[in-house]
Amino acid sequence: MHIDLNCDMGESFGVYTLGYDEAAMPYVTSINVACGFHASDPSNMLKTVCLAKKYNLAIGAHPSFPDLVGFGRRAMAASHEEIFADVVYQIGALAGVCQSQGLKLQHVKVHGAMYNQAEKDIAIGAAIAEAIKSVDPALYMVCSSGSPMVTAAKNAGVNYVEEAFADRAYTREGRLAPRSQAGAVIHDVNMVAQRVLALVKTGKVRTIDDTEISLNAETICVHGDTPGAVEMIKKIHSLLEQEGIGLKPFGKR
Amino acid sequence: MHIDLNCDMGESFGVYTLGYDEAAMPYVTSINVACGFHASDPSNMLKTVCLAKKYNLAIGAHPSFPDLVGFGRRAMAASHEEIFADVVYQIGALAGVCQSQGLKLQHVKVHGAMYNQAEKDIAIGAAIAEAIKSVDPALYMVCSSGSPMVTAAKNAGVNYVEEAFADRAYTREGRLAPRSQAGAVIHDVNMVAQRVLALVKTGKVRTIDDTEISLNAETICVHGDTPGAVEMIKKIHSLLEQEGIGLKPFGKR
Amino acid sequence: MHIDLNCDMGESFGVYTLGYDEAAMPYVTSINVACGFHASDPSNMLKTVCLAKKYNLAIGAHPSFPDLVGFGRRAMAASHEEIFADVVYQIGALAGVCQSQGLKLQHVKVHGAMYNQAEKDIAIGAAIAEAIKSVDPALYMVCSSGSPMVTAAKNAGVNYVEEAFADRAYTREGRLAPRSQAGAVIHDVNMVAQRVLALVKTGKVRTIDDTEISLNAETICVHGDTPGAVEMIKKIHSLLEQEGIGLKPFGKR
Amino acid sequence: MHIDLNCDMGESFGVYTLGYDEAAMPYVTSINVACGFHASDPSNMLKTVCLAKKYNLAIGAHPSFPDLVGFGRRAMAASHEEIFADVVYQIGALAGVCQSQGLKLQHVKVHGAMYNQAEKDIAIGAAIAEAIKSVDPALYMVCSSGSPMVTAAKNAGVNYVEEAFADRAYTREGRLAPRSQAGAVIHDVNMVAQRVLALVKTGKVRTIDDTEISLNAETICVHGDTPGAVEMIKKIHSLLEQEGIGLKPFGKR
Repeated sequence: MHIDLNCDMGESFGVYTLGYDEAAMPYVTSINVACGFHASDPSNMLKTVCLAKKYNLAIGAHPSFPDLVGFGRRAMAASHEEIFADVVYQIGALAGVCQSQGLKLQHVKVHGAMYNQAEKDIAIGAAIAEAIKSVDPALYMVCSSGSPMVTAAKNAGVNYVEEAFADRAYTREGRLAPRSQAGAVIHDVNMVAQRVLALVKTGKVRTIDDTEISLNAETICVHGDTPGAVEMIKKIHSLLEQEGIGLKPFGKR
Repeated sequence: MHIDLNCDMGESFGVYTLGYDEAAMPYVTSINVACGFHASDPSNMLKTVCLAKKYNLAIGAHPSFPDLVGFGRRAMAASHEEIFADVVYQIGALAGVCQSQGLKLQHVKVHGAMYNQAEKDIAIGAAIAEAIKSVDPALYMVCSSGSPMVTAAKNAGVNYVEEAFADRAYTREGRLAPRSQAGAVIHDVNMVAQRVLALVKTGKVRTIDDTEISLNAETICVHGDTPGAVEMIKKIHSLLEQEGIGLKPFGKR
Repeated sequence: MHIDLNCDMGESFGVYTLGYDEAAMPYVTSINVACGFHASDPSNMLKTVCLAKKYNLAIGAHPSFPDLVGFGRRAMAASHEEIFADVVYQIGALAGVCQSQGLKLQHVKVHGAMYNQAEKDIAIGAAIAEAIKSVDPALYMVCSSGSPMVTAAKNAGVNYVEEAFADRAYTREGRLAPRSQAGAVIHDVNMVAQRVLALVKTGKVRTIDDTEISLNAETICVHGDTPGAVEMIKKIHSLLEQEGIGLKPFGKR
Repeated sequence: MHIDLNCDMGESFGVYTLGYDEAAMPYVTSINVACGFHASDPSNMLKTVCLAKKYNLAIGAHPSFPDLVGFGRRAMAASHEEIFADVVYQIGALAGVCQSQGLKLQHVKVHGAMYNQAEKDIAIGAAIAEAIKSVDPALYMVCSSGSPMVTAAKNAGVNYVEEAFADRAYTREGRLAPRSQAGAVIHDVNMVAQRVLALVKTGKVRTIDDTEISLNAETICVHGDTPGAVEMIKKIHSLLEQEGIGLKPFGKR
């Protein structure tokens, strides 16, 4: 029994620093690296890829809408063709940075508003899936478990994995409870770690209204940019290790 | 006897159109495609790569300093590390777009101020050469004939070709005559075509002060974005064909 | 009896040229000048303001969402506070350019997707209206006739004028017929000019389904960036003059 | 006897935070607010101006070359016309934000590479001075004491003040010692405060090679973005107060 822990990283930009990248790196297995559209720039991408190499992490592209000032969090009415081209461009850019260090990309996980839109709208997911497959059919698309992203990935014939969020509550329908809802984000470190463990062992998670649902997850998303984030990641990591769960990138299984 | 004709293309941006790309494509063999830093964007890059496929052209990346508003024409004091990372990023981005259409890059030719700085400063050329080689050792670096760029390419051990400019006058030292000098840009279509032919056949070119010098050129740069540009390219192309010079991308020899 | 003709101008960017600004300027009375977020840059803004001075045109700011690559045409989920700040910034920037030439702004008309969203969503219009009033209470807000933008302007207590579109068909409800509908854009130059004349004289316009509705318009929007645009503007201008309608900026009445 | 303490502020961008703005505000009198070209964005500018209002600080624009990723620190070969237009635009943008809060600008101090180039090249200073005067002749230009910026300001007939740097060593010629030289930046808080006090009282400062020179300074630049910065500013402030030096914005004298 094994699992992958993925985390967004490389979201600094120019002189600006964001996140606790190197502090969290020893405790995750895959990272999603910003590609310059919502965060980062070529020099920061290079720095991040070098760190990933040092910690032997699997690297994924983390493409976004072009919205640096809004950190890619604002929904945008981009066309299918624009999303396709934007995702291809960003994958290529990061792949180039990886090649410069003798590395290859494992996966692609889109960021922020693009992720949120793809979770609901299969057409957005389709543009993403086609973009990924067109650049390199060996790449995995990281999809929100049970969402239309998964269907889009299947339709496109792209490799994919489903992910669950360590610190987010789910609805009875298996969707992320909206952040506006009380209890949507779980802050208790031990509770988060226990939920992750239960999910990995049983494939089940308790919902926000306290029923139990099945959730398919080959990778668990953890966060590295908030205070306390590193502690949470460490706790999840140590509990999983202690319980004999293998931790490795999903692409290496 | 054969030669390559290279031309900057794909320099449109968003709704803005620049250049006569498709009109010129039948008459050139290699194109240098803007990568979003001085011009273009992912959608325009995709469009340009699809056109290159249609016309069976060899594709090169045309990286620049990040200066969209200045079209990459303004000298900028970027560090070695910034130039390395910026060039790697842009090569990767265009390589991704090419892969999405089943194509591969042939070469890299830097743009505008970065090219001008590299022509004079071997350290700039070194950053560029190292970037190119690190991404893909099969790529060629296009260097201004006889300039420090060539030395930089040799030092880095990267594949390279030297280029001459069809419509630019040279000094006795084999350098481009500065644009500020009268006669630095040659506008007469027939004279330009004859100079190119002479250069290809004899490896020699007459200088701005009317002596003859040797110039090593495996590719000739022609321009596609000025009025009359397409006529000039056609003329060069037809004169070379008529004289039995083979026209093909330098990477295919 | 008099009217104002307003036209988007100054939408070039860097080396890129868009629109027929100077050709159209003699035939309009107010211009909406791009402020660098969907188009233009400081140097192009300065050039446009100098042209406006030469042709004695009233100048308005034409703020947009920050989306240069999408020309501000893509809907974006910006917050009230972001829209307020973005509009304030862009008004200020253009006001500065005007001041540098001894001129003052007359009005503000938002661009593209921001305009479209404000036509439907009063909260967007409110953010815009508050921004305009906060910078300078003498400024006019240009509102789509009869839309929620007008209500937003009234609520905020900002000066405003309503506008109609010369070449666009209206629904029975007084809204712009969606571009997807056949006949939504009227291409016949004479028909457009006659509609404008009728609207100015009678305050009425025939709808896309051929009824007659009242439409309040103190300014008519004409387009300067399409082939044939200048001819259409000239025709409207000459017909109005011929019929004794005074042409002057709304702020000068 | 009185002096002004100026400090760069408002250099956060989007989600990224930089500097200790509010912690330092009680101890300075004038602030230089980034305008979106090297740092900041409309929302951060608005936040900064609101803070300045709360602490009753005089506000200046802090324009830069357009180089967000390089934080405006990279020399750039911009033309006179580009610098003029870029500075006008940025002053206007911040003036608009100030007007939205009922405030006016006191001054303009250019940032980073533009400042460094203007310190050496009078033509750069001239473009800046003309830009400032054209927007509003009441504005002050902040010039590096004794540098060609001062001459440029005089030539243009713009209001100006000279500034000295609290923690920087000077050469015998009254120029800033280059950062590469040992001792160019003074880190000892007490020494910095004593130097500022001596300069304000006597108009003299000891040079890096331990002679004494006269330095004209109506404002002292302190830094707010480094660890220990706030302590240094507090120390300078308290020593000046204790010695009976009045602290107020130069525009209010």
